[in-house]
This record gives sequence, structure tokens and C-alpha cells, in this order.
Amino acid sequence: MLTANYLGNQTIGIREADPSPPKAGQVQIEVAYTGICGTDLHILHGHMDARVKPPAIIGHEMSGVIAAVGDGVTGWAAGDHVTVMPLDWDGSCPACRAGNQHICQNLTFVGIDSPGALQGLWNVDADLLVPLPKTLRLDHAALVEPVAVAVHDVRRAELAPGDRAVVVGGGPIGVLIAAVARHEGADVVVVEIDPRRRQAAAAMGFRVLDPSATDQVAWVEEWTQGAGADVAFEVSGAAAAVLGVTNLVKVRGTVVVVAIHPQPRPVDLQRVFWRELRLLGARVYQRADFERAVELLATGVIPAGELITEIVPITGTADAFAALESGRAMKILVNVSGGTA
Amino acid sequence: MLTANYLGNQTIGIREADPSPPKAGQVQIEVAYTGICGTDLHILHGHMDARVKPPAIIGHEMSGVIAAVGDGVTGWAAGDHVTVMPLDWDGSCPACRAGNQHICQNLTFVGIDSPGALQGLWNVDADLLVPLPKTLRLDHAALVEPVAVAVHDVRRAELAPGDRAVVVGGGPIGVLIAAVARHEGADVVVVEIDPRRRQAAAAMGFRVLDPSATDQVAWVEEWTQGAGADVAFEVSGAAAAVLGVTNLVKVRGTVVVVAIHPQPRPVDLQRVFWRELRLLGARVYQRADFERAVELLATGVIPAGELITEIVPITGTADAFAALESGRAMKILVNVSGGTA
Repeated sequence: MLTANYLGNQTIGIREADPSPPKAGQVQIEVAYTGICGTDLHILHGHMDARVKPPAIIGHEMSGVIAAVGDGVTGWAAGDHVTVMPLDWDGSCPACRAGNQHICQNLTFVGIDSPGALQGLWNVDADLLVPLPKTLRLDHAALVEPVAVAVHDVRRAELAPGDRAVVVGGGPIGVLIAAVARHEGADVVVVEIDPRRRQAAAAMGFRVLDPSATDQVAWVEEWTQGAGADVAFEVSGAAAAVLGVTNLVKVRGTVVVVAIHPQPRPVDLQRVFWRELRLLGARVYQRADFERAVELLATGVIPAGELITEIVPITGTADAFAALESGRAMKILVNVSGGTA
Repeated sequence: MLTANYLGNQTIGIREADPSPPKAGQVQIEVAYTGICGTDLHILHGHMDARVKPPAIIGHEMSGVIAAVGDGVTGWAAGDHVTVMPLDWDGSCPACRAGNQHICQNLTFVGIDSPGALQGLWNVDADLLVPLPKTLRLDHAALVEPVAVAVHDVRRAELAPGDRAVVVGGGPIGVLIAAVARHEGADVVVVEIDPRRRQAAAAMGFRVLDPSATDQVAWVEEWTQGAGADVAFEVSGAAAAVLGVTNLVKVRGTVVVVAIHPQPRPVDLQRVFWRELRLLGARVYQRADFERAVELLATGVIPAGELITEIVPITGTADAFAALESGRAMKILVNVSGGTA
């Protein structure tokens, strides 16, 4: 089978490997599609070399079909359509014992800390499987993981119908948050500086704002009759956005920190204090988020077709990384096994 | 009567003034004690000149006895012991309509935006009065306002019995938060860099930590068996404390931003994200907090005697500001009318 590997030195390489049978407690999945995301780009650039040791098969957004079932696995059979929730917790740390297994203090993230889905036949612990209905196209199903991120972020915000929400950053996760928030009954605006991304979000029916052309604080003030937004999602990762986001929300409003900020960022704590704001970190997802993501994709709530810019064969993985990086693509999938959706 | 005034140019001046009778809806209070706080120091230094126009009678932490009652005021009589909740909201802004009157978008803070309690006979809207039991000493009762701040902060943190709480900053508000949190059943540590303040907090029975001598992250890790604290209160106002505080709390833990930070501060948003932390702004108080503060003082929960370093006559107000600034005092009260507690 073919595998796509992070080789170090900002290089992705395709290698031939022999599949191995699933161990006890595992299933073997014939991987259909694997999406590439911002985290994978961080891996490519060596930012995560402390965790990812080359050669490493990466990839954690996927869909597939069970090819074989290992000893002791019940409830799953060859032919089942599945995705994988790529979190492997220890169950014993203080976070796990408090019920926050998804952000276990010793979390193994599958596809980063252990081999991922850019391989034709992938052995995975059956505990990590999430069932997919056969009515859901397998290409769309490769979006379950990022949709689960968005579901988690919106749930964390405690968004209510009628709320006004600002999504700062219109990349794939920003647009997915906007889609989930809209479905929950919120009125949404996406703030995005890149014209192509603005155009993509607008094409999905979202109100968009160019922060370099419009005074976003004044715009939000007017939009909300002087109150400020109920919720803002910081998805841009930009320092300037962080500094501005606290001015967008109402008294007792919520800012959800979704993006990764490798450096400490100046935050307007005076505004946090003055308006009694709430800043919430939101990371990955819980099983309920994953199941909800499947549902939202299966019922067509998520504009999956518009989000998937391109599908490439596994031999095109390196090009897919380059295309993603250039910003000319929203979501690129790798067709790992060469099948059709 | 004598009044203490902010005269601009970092100057406090004592002036003679004629008392006026209370207007309709007001009561006239014979002010017993007025405390001086950090905000008053900010006024003295001109940081709040946009709001405070000299000459201005300041002071907003007080106790007193009703001397006269204006037309239309019911439920109050001369001789009643009272304090004043110094918040005057418009009732019509979006924050007020959402039930957050205490942080009204057009809030008038009495003693800053309007004349305060450093005057012998003070006329105040009867709506702002909070009753005091006569069993509560009037000097101790001058602490109701800062205790209400602490009650509000602890309530905002949703602190539960058995929680572990770190109070970063051991000034008057920090110590009051520690006292309220301890009374709520939390296990508390006060982190304070100044040895005199550490000593004062230790004398009130609090566990104290010198962050320049002890690795506070390692200490908290050990104290909490690797989990991190449930809550941390940022009361120091220091940039370094802000950067460090996110490392003190557990997965899904809470950081309450109590201090005023005039400049944006670098915040470790990666930690906020990674541990799904919650940062909450907490400002002033609601009526329930004020009433609870009265109760906590009346029942001796608050170490009022230890906190009140000194009581000066109104003619000593300028010296009191200097003493407070030097850091050699915790809380200084001005005995405004020359009576005894």
C-alpha cells in the first residue's frame, strides 16, 4: 500500500509499505479520504518535531470502510463505514478523572503522536471508531473531524438561537463554525482579510466583513444596536485580531479562543474587566461533538461540496500541502485508496 | 462641614463647605468612616482626570448614619445605620436591559463621576442605600464596599467548597478575596511579592507564597497532585503575573481578572486553548454582593480589625493617601465626622 510520510526537512514523501493485520482490539480500515489541515502544515514545517518523529505517517481527518476486524472486537464488521475520533487518553490523569478526557493531560493525538490516516490500510483501536451512515458520501465524511471542532467551539460558547456571533477568520474552521452557529439559529458575520476566503464564505451565504476596509467595531455596534455581539470566535491566529476581538462583544459576552497562538498575545484585559467578558479556550471535541458532526454532514447542513476545493490521489499529497499553504484552497482531500465517493 | 477634595496636580485639599438639605428622593448621611482605595490613588495621580473634574469630593467606601430624609423617601429614618452602593445606572442601555445594571454601559460611579463620601453630611439617592445592623461597628462597616468586590469576584468564579484557589496579589482586595473564598470552603494560597503584605496575610491565617523565592507553578502542581488550581484570581495588576497565572490552573480551570490593567497584557493563549481555560472579568458588585458583604462583616468572617491599619481625621486625608501609597498600610479609614465606632 502507499503511505504519505513526513520526512523532516519540510518534505512529504510517498512510500510503499506492507499492511499488517489488525491486532486484538483493533480494526483495519481501508481509508477512503484524508483531509489535510493547518496542523498538518505545522508538522510539515517542523513546528511539531518534538512530537512527530520522521518518517511519520500523518493525517487525522478521514473516512473509510472497515476491511478487517481484530480479535475481541464486537459491534463492528467489515464493510461498515467509519471515521476515527483521533484522541487516545490515559483515563487516569486529573483531567480525565474530572471528565475531560478529550483534553487529557497526557493525550495521544492519533496522526500526530502516533501513525495517521495517510495510508491505504490503517489499523486503529476500535474504541476510536465513530459510525458513518452509508447515505453520507465518503468524501464529505472526511470533514467530520473539522466539523466536530466547530460543533465543540459553538457548544463551548453556549450559543443560543437569536444570538449574534462574529467569526474572526474565514478559513475552513471559521467557515465551519459559521455554518454550525447559523444552524443553531445565530445571526453570523465572518470577518476575513483575504479576499478569496471572503468570497468563498460569501458564496456559502455568509455575511462577510473586510476588517481592512470597514471599522468592524462600529459595524458590530450598529448591527447589535449598541450592545456588542453575544459571542466572538477568534479563529484567525493573528495578534491584531486578538487585540481587537474584545471590542466586538457585549457586556458579559463570550470570546472563544479557537486558533493556536504560539506566542503570548496582548489582550485588552481592561475591556475584559470593564465588560465582565468571558474568554474560553476550546480544543478538539468530545464524542457527542463527533456524532453531531456526522449528523450535520449527513443532513446537508454543512456546505461540504463548497468547502472541498480539490481531491488528489495519494501521490499528489505534497502538491496538496503546497496548494493549501498558498491559500488558494479551502479543504483538500487525499483520495487514499483510489476509490470513488 | 469639612470636605476632602481632589484639587488636581496630585493634591488633596481640605475645604470648609455648607451642607445642603437632601432633595426629594435623597437622604442626608452623617458620614462616619470613609476608606481610601487604589482607585482613589489613581484619581490623585490624575489617571482619571477625564472623569474627575477638580475640585472634586471623592470617596466611595463608607459607613454612616442617616441625619435627614428628603421628600418622598420611605423605609428610611434618621438614625438608621447605612452604607451606599455607589453605582448609578441608566436602566435603559443594552447591559441594563439584559440584567447587568451593575456594569451599565453609561454607569455613574458615585465618588468618581459624582461627589463622594469625604464630607461630613452627604446627600445620596435613597435607592443606593444598603442597611447596616447596629451591631456592626461603623469603622468595620466602611469595608462593606471592598468586601462586596471580593464577594462578587468569588461568586463570579463559581468557587465550590473544597476548591483550591490561588490569589495572585495580597493587597486589601486580594486578602478580602482570600477571606471570602476561605469562608466558602476553599483551600487558599496568597501569592505576594511584598514581604510586608505577605506578613499581613500570614497574620490573618492565610498560606502565603513568595513568587520570587518559590517556583509557584511547581508548588501549585504539588499542592494539587498534578491537577492545577480550580481558580486563580489575578489581583496584582502586574504583567508578569498575568503571563504566569494561566500556568496555575487546572484543565477547564478559571482565572478571574480582578485587577485593572491599563495596558494590554501578553496572555498565554496557547495555555488557554490547551487546557480549555476560562478567563472571566469581574467588576464591582451587585446588590446581593453588598448585602452578603454586610453579613460577612457583621458575623466576623472578615478580619476587619487586622485590615484597618490606621484611622485618621479628615484633616489627615492627604497623609493617609501618602501612607497608602508607600505600601506601609493595608486599609486606612478617614474618620469623617469625628465620632467613635
